Amino acid sequence: MRATVIHGEGDVRLEEVADPVLHSGRDAIVRVVAACVCGSDLWPYRGVGNAPEPKRIGHEFVGVVEAVGDDVSEVAVGDFVIAPFYDCDMTCANCVNGVSTSCLDGGWWGADDREGHLADGGQGERVRVPHADGTLAVVPGPVDPALVPHLLTLSDVMGTGHHAAVSAGVREGSTVVVVGDGAVGLCGVLASARLGAARIVIMSRNPARQALAREFGATDVVELRGDEGIAAVKELFDGIGPDAVLECVGTRESMEQAIRSARPGGQVGYVGVPKGGAELPIGELFGRNVNVAGGVAPVRNYIAELLPEVLDGSLQPGRVFDLELPLDEVAEAYLAMHERRAIKSLLRVSEV
Amino acid sequence: MRATVIHGEGDVRLEEVADPVLHSGRDAIVRVVAACVCGSDLWPYRGVGNAPEPKRIGHEFVGVVEAVGDDVSEVAVGDFVIAPFYDCDMTCANCVNGVSTSCLDGGWWGADDREGHLADGGQGERVRVPHADGTLAVVPGPVDPALVPHLLTLSDVMGTGHHAAVSAGVREGSTVVVVGDGAVGLCGVLASARLGAARIVIMSRNPARQALAREFGATDVVELRGDEGIAAVKELFDGIGPDAVLECVGTRESMEQAIRSARPGGQVGYVGVPKGGAELPIGELFGRNVNVAGGVAPVRNYIAELLPEVLDGSLQPGRVFDLELPLDEVAEAYLAMHERRAIKSLLRVSEV
Repeated sequence: MRATVIHGEGDVRLEEVADPVLHSGRDAIVRVVAACVCGSDLWPYRGVGNAPEPKRIGHEFVGVVEAVGDDVSEVAVGDFVIAPFYDCDMTCANCVNGVSTSCLDGGWWGADDREGHLADGGQGERVRVPHADGTLAVVPGPVDPALVPHLLTLSDVMGTGHHAAVSAGVREGSTVVVVGDGAVGLCGVLASARLGAARIVIMSRNPARQALAREFGATDVVELRGDEGIAAVKELFDGIGPDAVLECVGTRESMEQAIRSARPGGQVGYVGVPKGGAELPIGELFGRNVNVAGGVAPVRNYIAELLPEVLDGSLQPGRVFDLELPLDEVAEAYLAMHERRAIKSLLRVSEV
Repeated sequence: MRATVIHGEGDVRLEEVADPVLHSGRDAIVRVVAACVCGSDLWPYRGVGNAPEPKRIGHEFVGVVEAVGDDVSEVAVGDFVIAPFYDCDMTCANCVNGVSTSCLDGGWWGADDREGHLADGGQGERVRVPHADGTLAVVPGPVDPALVPHLLTLSDVMGTGHHAAVSAGVREGSTVVVVGDGAVGLCGVLASARLGAARIVIMSRNPARQALAREFGATDVVELRGDEGIAAVKELFDGIGPDAVLECVGTRESMEQAIRSARPGGQVGYVGVPKGGAELPIGELFGRNVNVAGGVAPVRNYIAELLPEVLDGSLQPGRVFDLELPLDEVAEAYLAMHERRAIKSLLRVSEV
């Protein structure tokens, strides 16, 4: 089969690789229908962090089950499924506590599982899925092909935006600021609106992203950054700042802006993968009782809550995809996001 | 009148100072009945932080109102009152949001208020109280003298322990670890029990403090520290750690221990004044979704909830006082705490 391999900075290639096989009775093989490129895929693509080596990549996908091991009971051949951006058993103490990203038996796409077998990357034609009963969420069929982009967001970006909003304590009537106008930030706007926020500010300088944010429920746009951006935000909220700030970037600067924007007693929900060794300034947090919550989003746990609204059409997070390409053109899918020509690229791999 | 002045490391003295006078129509003068020494008073006493200069000290007191300004309406001469460890108007946006420690008009005992007049320290015979209607909580009289120690804890230590527990998200059925066996940590145990925690571990090596913690509701004691302490705690909770950790010390070591003890998705509630430039390790927090909440405790906001239980005798946080001295002996009150001969020292100043 063909799958995406990252070879180094700016170098992703679709290559012929070994077909996946069932290694355990708990495995399934999924034929990928659609996958996408994550903002976090861009970090190795940009040469940030460890030097990339040839490595399978991609961790967001939906597809149809082609084979299951003998011990799989919740998922059947032919089911349309959503895979979260990690695998998890959904039975361990952490999964039961709602934190499936800390699954005691879990792992990551494109890396070896705990038995030493590769869990394929998501940007390919097929994927072997460890402990499929836990990892995969079945979408009741038949699945309308038009819903595929929206369903695909439950694999990561919508669940992650939702985690930012939940972690920031967004509820009915909350005042919210979203730092970051990427796909996660935009989904954070949508999640905040869905949770009943009274007012939602997006920090953005990009007209197209501002427009989508407004369609997702943003009530205000602030284009300023740094001290000026913080002052503008405070002015919107009685001079003290909003109840909740969603940090959806992951740099030291964005986190500091988020913390300093929140009102005393406010809460920062963060989901941006921390980069640059940023530590949290405890003195600033302590003096103003600003809380910090979040982390790597347990999106598998959120699918049950979000899926019904995607199926009935009331939640349309797939609108963050503004570029759709066949799997062949995965290199362009990365490049367009890297150059900020696209918010988020969807890869069509096979028919529903 | 006489009041306590700190002159330098290890040097607190009871001295003759000017009697307080009403400077504003919103002021009151309170005759102090009882005051106490806070763990945070020990930092300048130990020479940590800024070099102490002659400065009025003490921020926890209860007393009887002797005079009020023309604009005071909620507090009357003769009322028995509890002062929080700061002054606040209880009408600004932050006070209304429950964060009176960030009062837009507030200040600190022993320092000048916003009009440049000294708000006396609490370890003295009388105190001028800015915006008395907000700052002071009236205790319905007549007040049983036996309740004075318990009422005094609502000025800081019980409200602060309660804030640690609330910030850590303690609720019915929570599993809890308390880091710190000082008066705040012990009140954190009591607050956690009151909020319905199912299991409460106190980290302590001191038999007397362990005993009081058990009387306050601790179910387990862990004497180990560092990696061994964390391992012992995790073992008590299914290998993953507790839901909630109360950080009641304020050092880098204690905060790291708290963060590393919490289960994935768990929450650290912290109230120890951060010392030593400790910053929060965001990578550790992110990967395990450990949330950090808390700060300088808005105890004024908590009095309404806690006072009825003190008055009916069901909540007895005053048991943290294991040394009671007349105001004359304030130097010994500090020394006994500094040498860890006392958990917390109460100063008797006048009759109820």
